[in-house]
Amino acid sequence: MEELTWNNPAIADGIAAIRTGSPFVYGLTNYVAANLSANVLLAVGAGPAIGAAADFPTVFPAGAGAVWINTAALISNPAEPLADAARTAHEAGSPWVLDPVAVGAGATEYDAFVKSLLDHRPTVIRGNASELIALSGGAATGKGVETTASAEDAIGAVEELARRTGAVVAVSGPTDYLTDGTRTVAVPGGDVRLTQVTGAGCSLGALIAGALAVVPDALTATAVAHAAFATAAERAGARTVGTGSFAVALLDELSLLGR
Amino acid sequence: MEELTWNNPAIADGIAAIRTGSPFVYGLTNYVAANLSANVLLAVGAGPAIGAAADFPTVFPAGAGAVWINTAALISNPAEPLADAARTAHEAGSPWVLDPVAVGAGATEYDAFVKSLLDHRPTVIRGNASELIALSGGAATGKGVETTASAEDAIGAVEELARRTGAVVAVSGPTDYLTDGTRTVAVPGGDVRLTQVTGAGCSLGALIAGALAVVPDALTATAVAHAAFATAAERAGARTVGTGSFAVALLDELSLLGR
Amino acid sequence: MEELTWNNPAIADGIAAIRTGSPFVYGLTNYVAANLSANVLLAVGAGPAIGAAADFPTVFPAGAGAVWINTAALISNPAEPLADAARTAHEAGSPWVLDPVAVGAGATEYDAFVKSLLDHRPTVIRGNASELIALSGGAATGKGVETTASAEDAIGAVEELARRTGAVVAVSGPTDYLTDGTRTVAVPGGDVRLTQVTGAGCSLGALIAGALAVVPDALTATAVAHAAFATAAERAGARTVGTGSFAVALLDELSLLGR
Repeated sequence: MEELTWNNPAIADGIAAIRTGSPFVYGLTNYVAANLSANVLLAVGAGPAIGAAADFPTVFPAGAGAVWINTAALISNPAEPLADAARTAHEAGSPWVLDPVAVGAGATEYDAFVKSLLDHRPTVIRGNASELIALSGGAATGKGVETTASAEDAIGAVEELARRTGAVVAVSGPTDYLTDGTRTVAVPGGDVRLTQVTGAGCSLGALIAGALAVVPDALTATAVAHAAFATAAERAGARTVGTGSFAVALLDELSLLGR
Repeated sequence: MEELTWNNPAIADGIAAIRTGSPFVYGLTNYVAANLSANVLLAVGAGPAIGAAADFPTVFPAGAGAVWINTAALISNPAEPLADAARTAHEAGSPWVLDPVAVGAGATEYDAFVKSLLDHRPTVIRGNASELIALSGGAATGKGVETTASAEDAIGAVEELARRTGAVVAVSGPTDYLTDGTRTVAVPGGDVRLTQVTGAGCSLGALIAGALAVVPDALTATAVAHAAFATAAERAGARTVGTGSFAVALLDELSLLGR
Repeated sequence: MEELTWNNPAIADGIAAIRTGSPFVYGLTNYVAANLSANVLLAVGAGPAIGAAADFPTVFPAGAGAVWINTAALISNPAEPLADAARTAHEAGSPWVLDPVAVGAGATEYDAFVKSLLDHRPTVIRGNASELIALSGGAATGKGVETTASAEDAIGAVEELARRTGAVVAVSGPTDYLTDGTRTVAVPGGDVRLTQVTGAGCSLGALIAGALAVVPDALTATAVAHAAFATAAERAGARTVGTGSFAVALLDELSLLGR
């Protein structure tokens, strides 16, 4: 399978394009992950705004370079602003990322809402293996927000999900797999501590949105975010011990990528 | 009074049991403390999920190894999901931790709700001296989320609260006191900067839930969390200057405990 | 124009007064910035409580040394508790800070609510140039939560806003400008990475509230917060590379100011 890493010039070019373009990226996410997600985008030069204050979800997605919607935003929002933001992004032609956190973990009312967002045609869907297997119609295997399946187990399901929805689908694991349903690429690397820092996966969804705002091809944009994140995590992991320092170093390395 | 510290093998055994068992721990907490609380649990190997999205509070507590409810979750949730989660945990036999943040600080409607959660029989109640004195029916002495009473002042009140509710009750201070109403133990140590990092006390509540998921005896589980937290804080304090670095080092030391 | 910096004894005296007085400061803010804002206040010795749980907004502002209201709190709160807190603070004579995040960025319903809070007479209004130009009635220029105008561009508008509202108005930029409508002072310094850490500006609003709780003159209190923040940022910037370490060091330096 084709591999994409930081050594591929398209990856560094994508990060440079974010720094040059400084796109406005709008997100609805949950309060556990919001701070890290905003800081990840700021570290690469994007301008994030987060949250469903008043008419933000019916106004900001149309003017944003890209949008990300993490359905765990429902921990402090009703469903309506998420649907509004997805609809507005789709109708305005703003690319948007769906992060279906914890879908398939047993909360059926939540799962039904997450699936309803597919009507608004996300540009990219990202998650862990359990989430994406569940979203593609497979058996539910999640344990809260954690996966019990491997990314490799999910390749068939994510390819099917991509073909059915027209979205690029990206599954995270020790090696990440990204597909548009026809072409599937692997992004190796990262650090195991990414699973020990809350919101790290969520912040990758935000970073995908940042790349979508400046890189026209959705599969390439998704690879830019995944490979940049993996490289920053490797560099952070090489110089820290413990999970707290790792999270700080991850932001440092993202802010220094390509400089 | 009996003292429990990291030197007691039961403490390190409890942390090792969390790492081995990787329990799913579900929490409803406030957005100021949520990120640190999740990272504290991840640092010791638990798998936290936080928040009242859709049917999470009526589904997740039954399947979780333990649950923690920080009543300051009301800053972004209505009361109902907190009551749902407490009821579900109690009925399913999942141990749960009540953290009655700011009770007794003057907000009477809030205080009444906090007290109503006692109907769902928390396994452990943790807080500062002002909060626990207020919850036990004593005079209100809180200043916002801070205590104006000492942990030593609260020992009688927490013992009475433990006997009345059947919960283990833990009061935080320079030395923490933990009681089931009959047996009271002291956990010394920690670092004064724990009071200068927002959500540190709240994250201890999450850690107690992590221990309850794998340690059968509630008083022992509570001691595991308190003594591990105190030791990690001491180690973090010894190698940092300033409150920002201390918080990062606290997570590092938790992630390295027993390794 | 008069400059105020850390070298002015009034600045260090103000920070020392916060440490001595340990004022209770109550805030309604957004979940992206809440953690950093609380930690900034704790770093200088204030006791923050954040959020609209139950009757907090109708009770806590009256007993607080000062209050800050960041209107992006609307991302997880209805409008009512913000109006309640502003009204209660004003009626009780508690000084309060208005931070009109993202006003003028295109969300007209949001903007109308932000402007309605001026009826409750904020003691200080702080923001970036685009926000304060919009609030003073000028053309909308914001891009999400970021400014597209310079602080220097906004000086006339903020002086007019100060005269019209009776508030001290402070605009942030590479050099900050603070005015009561008659006297305008400059606070130079800081670090460009303050714009690359989410919630940094919001946390400055919280710090202004901390100073207002102990420094009688509102313009002086606002200068204390701005100059302390700029100095801490410079010291943090001088010893870190990358945005993650900078944020940690900012808290460290605030916690060490004047020690």
